Amino acid sequence: MRDILLGEFLGCAFLILFGGGVVANNLLTKSKGNNVGWLAISAGWGFAVMGGVFVAKSAGSIQADLNPAVTLAKFLLGGIYSVSEIFPIMFAQITGCFLGAILVWLTYLPHWKETEDPSLKLAVFSTGPAIRHSPSNLMAEVIGTTILVFGIGAIFGKATNNGEISPAMGPYLVGLLVWAIGLSLGGATGYAINPARDLGPRIAHALLPIAGKGKSDWKYSWIPVLGPVMGGVLGAFLCKMFL
Amino acid sequence: MRDILLGEFLGCAFLILFGGGVVANNLLTKSKGNNVGWLAISAGWGFAVMGGVFVAKSAGSIQADLNPAVTLAKFLLGGIYSVSEIFPIMFAQITGCFLGAILVWLTYLPHWKETEDPSLKLAVFSTGPAIRHSPSNLMAEVIGTTILVFGIGAIFGKATNNGEISPAMGPYLVGLLVWAIGLSLGGATGYAINPARDLGPRIAHALLPIAGKGKSDWKYSWIPVLGPVMGGVLGAFLCKMFL
Amino acid sequence: MRDILLGEFLGCAFLILFGGGVVANNLLTKSKGNNVGWLAISAGWGFAVMGGVFVAKSAGSIQADLNPAVTLAKFLLGGIYSVSEIFPIMFAQITGCFLGAILVWLTYLPHWKETEDPSLKLAVFSTGPAIRHSPSNLMAEVIGTTILVFGIGAIFGKATNNGEISPAMGPYLVGLLVWAIGLSLGGATGYAINPARDLGPRIAHALLPIAGKGKSDWKYSWIPVLGPVMGGVLGAFLCKMFL
Amino acid sequence: MRDILLGEFLGCAFLILFGGGVVANNLLTKSKGNNVGWLAISAGWGFAVMGGVFVAKSAGSIQADLNPAVTLAKFLLGGIYSVSEIFPIMFAQITGCFLGAILVWLTYLPHWKETEDPSLKLAVFSTGPAIRHSPSNLMAEVIGTTILVFGIGAIFGKATNNGEISPAMGPYLVGLLVWAIGLSLGGATGYAINPARDLGPRIAHALLPIAGKGKSDWKYSWIPVLGPVMGGVLGAFLCKMFL
Repeated sequence: MRDILLGEFLGCAFLILFGGGVVANNLLTKSKGNNVGWLAISAGWGFAVMGGVFVAKSAGSIQADLNPAVTLAKFLLGGIYSVSEIFPIMFAQITGCFLGAILVWLTYLPHWKETEDPSLKLAVFSTGPAIRHSPSNLMAEVIGTTILVFGIGAIFGKATNNGEISPAMGPYLVGLLVWAIGLSLGGATGYAINPARDLGPRIAHALLPIAGKGKSDWKYSWIPVLGPVMGGVLGAFLCKMFL
Repeated sequence: MRDILLGEFLGCAFLILFGGGVVANNLLTKSKGNNVGWLAISAGWGFAVMGGVFVAKSAGSIQADLNPAVTLAKFLLGGIYSVSEIFPIMFAQITGCFLGAILVWLTYLPHWKETEDPSLKLAVFSTGPAIRHSPSNLMAEVIGTTILVFGIGAIFGKATNNGEISPAMGPYLVGLLVWAIGLSLGGATGYAINPARDLGPRIAHALLPIAGKGKSDWKYSWIPVLGPVMGGVLGAFLCKMFL
Repeated sequence: MRDILLGEFLGCAFLILFGGGVVANNLLTKSKGNNVGWLAISAGWGFAVMGGVFVAKSAGSIQADLNPAVTLAKFLLGGIYSVSEIFPIMFAQITGCFLGAILVWLTYLPHWKETEDPSLKLAVFSTGPAIRHSPSNLMAEVIGTTILVFGIGAIFGKATNNGEISPAMGPYLVGLLVWAIGLSLGGATGYAINPARDLGPRIAHALLPIAGKGKSDWKYSWIPVLGPVMGGVLGAFLCKMFL
Repeated sequence: MRDILLGEFLGCAFLILFGGGVVANNLLTKSKGNNVGWLAISAGWGFAVMGGVFVAKSAGSIQADLNPAVTLAKFLLGGIYSVSEIFPIMFAQITGCFLGAILVWLTYLPHWKETEDPSLKLAVFSTGPAIRHSPSNLMAEVIGTTILVFGIGAIFGKATNNGEISPAMGPYLVGLLVWAIGLSLGGATGYAINPARDLGPRIAHALLPIAGKGKSDWKYSWIPVLGPVMGGVLGAFLCKMFL
């Protein structure tokens, strides 16, 4: 269990260092990748997941969920986690994401004060809606997370003889799935599809002495938590029914 | 047979959710990926096919055609489908694409009324020509679909010892083939290369209460159906002759 | 031998259909991928090579060179081709590229007359220098082709236990190598790195009734032939010495 | 040992030819890939590493480090290199990078005098900070290199059964890791993350008769050397502790 917690913690730190990093590179003033665009952002998050999975596995979490919604879905499907395990795992995921956000802040340290708009700084840490409308935003997060869980179920299901897939191709394909979700479904809410990915960095944004930062938009923060949780449940149900 | 229909249905829903989704992200006003460009669109469709194949296979359709033109080609080449099977399969494919289009509409729900131009909204659902000229548009769809069928035949042919290819690499390479078709051949008609991909979402466009929608351009709709059907026949013929 | 010629012919037709196609999509007026950019062009050519290799192999050319410079290099390294074989193979490659160029012309048929600048139309078919300077242009083509041959030698050399590489990964990695050459070395001359890729389509440009076409720039045409031939010889020499 | 030195030398020449080449294509006036952007630059460097690893391995360096920081990390982790080996290896890496820079200069020979800004010419060879601030720049290089070493450790660690990974997928995944580092962490300093990658080309910039070149910015040059060395040590420490 200690190895699992360590793996999820380190994998999530890697996830946010790379995922938050590509957004920082895109948004922060004077960054060399300024305005690199959505294709690059979604690719960067895909690579972030892929690398995070390798880190988590190598450090001891063979499941390498990196996402409370995925952990919840696996718990509901049964046979992997007991109820006493999932909350510590989720806590490790959130704290790992918190650490990753600190590392992003440090990597781009001189750029925060050069960037005028505080909303761009928050966007490096947490997601926000393109058009603020709670039911629609929640639905977009539910759809994105459901398809993430269902897609993972498909990749490791009968399509690859129930997981007989090389240890290199598995994380690669999951990374491509996340890249695809960003490209196709991410335009409405910025695709948290992971409660820890949004909550951990949002806490970091609130606590860190970021030059010229604004509010942490806590009134939106429940959507990228509840939506992915609902998507995890729905995704598990669809896996059970159809795969 | 029930599993095959379920697999094709779910795989096609995945296909259009991701394929239509990337176009929505690119075209709809205020979307975070607005104007992400053709490289991203073609990549998104490639990932859509790849993921759709995993879903279809895991849900029970080992062939994972997701495309009536491909199903037709395999039927003509013989040994896989009987004549009584192909029409239900094609129906499942079209209804799956219809469902996927509904999910795209829901994912980007608040963006439809923000988008002024009705032709952009239709473009999220169905293809249209860059320059309207029926014989040329038909020819472009025939060429694109022929090369799709022929390319699939090559990937699973002697090049990989008649299909001795890992269950992860197969869908990946087919996804790259579709990415390539979009990049290289898609500029003339938007590359339906699949009757279900165009027809299912066009029906959805006609039926759904999309805010501020326009006509569904039914006068063009026969080209992305007939062209791919002709391409399926021609592709099967070329596979028979040369592979 | 008949199968080898057929494979090289079909593989080269595929190569130019996709390679010329992505340039057409980028350059021709009103194309949906207009101005998609160099990253997409280089990706498109990489996929073109990858797919062409699958086609060539499936149709009977296990070597799948698609390039007289590569065929020459393999001949010089010995053990694969006899001297009487290489000229028919090169002829098949050039005619395949010629066919591919016709297919590009047909795919984008209504776009030629909409495009004003004749030099853009030629660029769909053949390469041209960014800055016209024969010795430098020749050198750029020599360096690009040398590294292509040397890179192929490395991929199928000791790095992968002398070619013990899966039949799916081999063409994939060669495609990535060509993508990389385009991205990194292609900016000076448009990277023919293949005499057939430039000559076959240039002949097609001269012969086809392309609306509003200009001259075929024959005075430059010797550079993308001689440069790759010299690069093939130099690449073979480096493989012999170092790999 | 002679083979290892040759492999590292040739692999590093390949690395810089492709890595410097993509920057030249992006920055030099009249280049066909002018302004191709950061996504392409980071992809180009990823492919450069991937190809360089294949070259290094095929030429005799099974480790294929291409980077003194990685060599140092492996030495510290023990069992691979003796202390008398690492300095000749690092020297081979730097001279290989020097050769690669000459090849970039030659490939784009007519473009140097067309390019007005001397700082763009230096940027083809060596890295520079987005915002000049030594402690922050050093920290960005330390973080980037640490994560490179840690990521390599994860890819070849327990995640893939301690290196039981196909000889094609290993270099591919390392290339993707470098692509990801560029996308996500490269915006602050241009991610040298490799002392040889920065120092060898900087020496070349100082010595070559580049048309209209400026200063070689030696006052910054210690950061992309010391930062990666510190990152190599820290990365080795983290691998020891957590993987």
